[in-house]
Amino acid sequence: MAATDYKFEGWLGLDASAADGKMVWGEFEPKPWEETDVDIKITHCGICGSDLHTLRSGWGPTNYPCCVGHEIVGTVVRVGSDVKNGLKVGDRVGVGAQSESCLGRKGDECKACASGMENYCPRGHVGTYNGVYLNGGKSYGGYATYNRVPAHFAVKIPVEIPSAEAAPMLCGGVTTYAPLKFHGCGPGKSVGIIGLGGLGHFGVMWAKALGADKVVVVSRTSGKKADALQMGADEFIATDEDKDWARKNAGTLDIIVCTVSSTSMPLMEYMSLLGMDGTFVQVGAPDDGLPTIQQFPLIFKRLKLTGSLIGSPGDIREMFELAVEKKVKPWVREVPMKDANKAICEFEAGKPRYRFTLVNEPEQHQQGKL
Amino acid sequence: MAATDYKFEGWLGLDASAADGKMVWGEFEPKPWEETDVDIKITHCGICGSDLHTLRSGWGPTNYPCCVGHEIVGTVVRVGSDVKNGLKVGDRVGVGAQSESCLGRKGDECKACASGMENYCPRGHVGTYNGVYLNGGKSYGGYATYNRVPAHFAVKIPVEIPSAEAAPMLCGGVTTYAPLKFHGCGPGKSVGIIGLGGLGHFGVMWAKALGADKVVVVSRTSGKKADALQMGADEFIATDEDKDWARKNAGTLDIIVCTVSSTSMPLMEYMSLLGMDGTFVQVGAPDDGLPTIQQFPLIFKRLKLTGSLIGSPGDIREMFELAVEKKVKPWVREVPMKDANKAICEFEAGKPRYRFTLVNEPEQHQQGKL
Repeated sequence: MAATDYKFEGWLGLDASAADGKMVWGEFEPKPWEETDVDIKITHCGICGSDLHTLRSGWGPTNYPCCVGHEIVGTVVRVGSDVKNGLKVGDRVGVGAQSESCLGRKGDECKACASGMENYCPRGHVGTYNGVYLNGGKSYGGYATYNRVPAHFAVKIPVEIPSAEAAPMLCGGVTTYAPLKFHGCGPGKSVGIIGLGGLGHFGVMWAKALGADKVVVVSRTSGKKADALQMGADEFIATDEDKDWARKNAGTLDIIVCTVSSTSMPLMEYMSLLGMDGTFVQVGAPDDGLPTIQQFPLIFKRLKLTGSLIGSPGDIREMFELAVEKKVKPWVREVPMKDANKAICEFEAGKPRYRFTLVNEPEQHQQGKL
Repeated sequence: MAATDYKFEGWLGLDASAADGKMVWGEFEPKPWEETDVDIKITHCGICGSDLHTLRSGWGPTNYPCCVGHEIVGTVVRVGSDVKNGLKVGDRVGVGAQSESCLGRKGDECKACASGMENYCPRGHVGTYNGVYLNGGKSYGGYATYNRVPAHFAVKIPVEIPSAEAAPMLCGGVTTYAPLKFHGCGPGKSVGIIGLGGLGHFGVMWAKALGADKVVVVSRTSGKKADALQMGADEFIATDEDKDWARKNAGTLDIIVCTVSSTSMPLMEYMSLLGMDGTFVQVGAPDDGLPTIQQFPLIFKRLKLTGSLIGSPGDIREMFELAVEKKVKPWVREVPMKDANKAICEFEAGKPRYRFTLVNEPEQHQQGKL
């Protein structure tokens, strides 16, 4: 096995203040190499809300130093001898929020891994950053020059999709694609997307691409209405601007994907938009739990409240195919990797319309440093 | 149309104190006759928790006088000329908790009624008591001598099922049967029943009758363990007697029907018993809403939280067929109708093992009074 002639460097969070734009550039030690791994020279990495949560230890204590970023796009530069999914040096691949699952290596069979639901692996789900691999190595994300990852979780990107657009699909995209697909979004269905941020804007586009009859965006104000319609939404509900919004639209939707994450959101009013046997998929996770659920709406309309966790490599492949077929084009602003600290602050301030992708400029790679 | 030669009399609640065993016997005015109705000479009526809730105005103000009872069994004594479902005078029938739905009579088509889900009719669901029919009449329940009801909601009872056993199936039975059937209870599935009361005891027996691999009862103490096993349960969890119950049994169930109705129940621990894609059906409705839901379990296992509302006439027919085929025998104590006040007090005190059926003695009918 040849020694690498490249260095793993990236923006490191050293403590919770990193979330305030205080990441520092530095080298890190990737996971110990295994022959099922690939190394990727990173060209692009999307910024995701999880990056901020993790940098500030918002979802429990983070294992600093931590390099975040789990919407990674780059070129394969090294391929292990046991890599099974056909990746070759030079392939352009993407890595999402998950970079390892048990894949049956922990004794008895893992139903989730065996059935292509690696994202729900209960025994070996490793996040692309702030995780620990089965071999003991730490996972570091994509605000960096290189990424080392089990090849199973690197997915080839179709030539039709530009890297800056592929990047945010890898977490934000698939997090909304997977539940829409799973819950039957398609012709004959009316779909609601609550919250028009990075996830929501994908939700609108996937719902249309999957053939839903009607896509309705629910937001507090009409500030993003023009954007929503341009993305393909058919209707827009501004809850702060119409006191009667819930009654007027009651029972009109089949599936809702809620990307809003607040303990004080009007969850029961949101759910009232569903008709018989409707499904409410909560993909945002408020720190203090969901608002109180009244049981009667669940009973009287047999509504389902459920959640969804990112997507599997298979989901990502499917999503890419749909994006190519239906020409789905996310709204992305490219930001130089060197400006990552500034970009995460702007992200936290709600500036993206609707996603930022960090870009490693080629000469940075040539020089081996930023 | 011949005038009736019988009187509609029953136990009437006049105010909230009725729930304390203060119902009074008296005559009531049934709904104005329609040619789609039947009159039923009541022989049996089960006691259901809803009866108590309604007598005490627990689910909102009750429209007194109110005669409760919605697990009615009796003999058809009059059949309207427009009755379509083949009922004849002399047929033994049952009426559950619902006695009318719109059946498409309110203008545009009703999807629920058109598809045999009358119980979810959003426009014309009338309860068997304390309701108002489309024709303006009040609905009165089965703690009575006679019942007048739209024939669509009277279901013939197979000869194999004794009336005292058929009665509690009509609400308590179908309330657990319908969600188990709908959510795929059968071979290969492990099912949990939380709470072993009237509903729970049916849940255990239906789950076994439907062919579930394993049925687990969850209760606070082991006081009902022997009963549960006798009903067919394979395992029993006593949550007050094993601090580690949730961890030990985590991820072992596919479907849970929760018949417990308390805002302080350990809902998240209950849900942790579910494995990937598991379904939690809440059929009890706490007055103050459900306990706080933490989102992460819904996300990480794609769990579904849902509800279920009684059953349709079609569900009741299916349930009866299953009961005959699998010889399901509910645990019922028969109580004379004259002792209804005492019986509801015992019911409220948790005495049934596991259901009471009120019985009109034949001579009472012969004399036309109790």
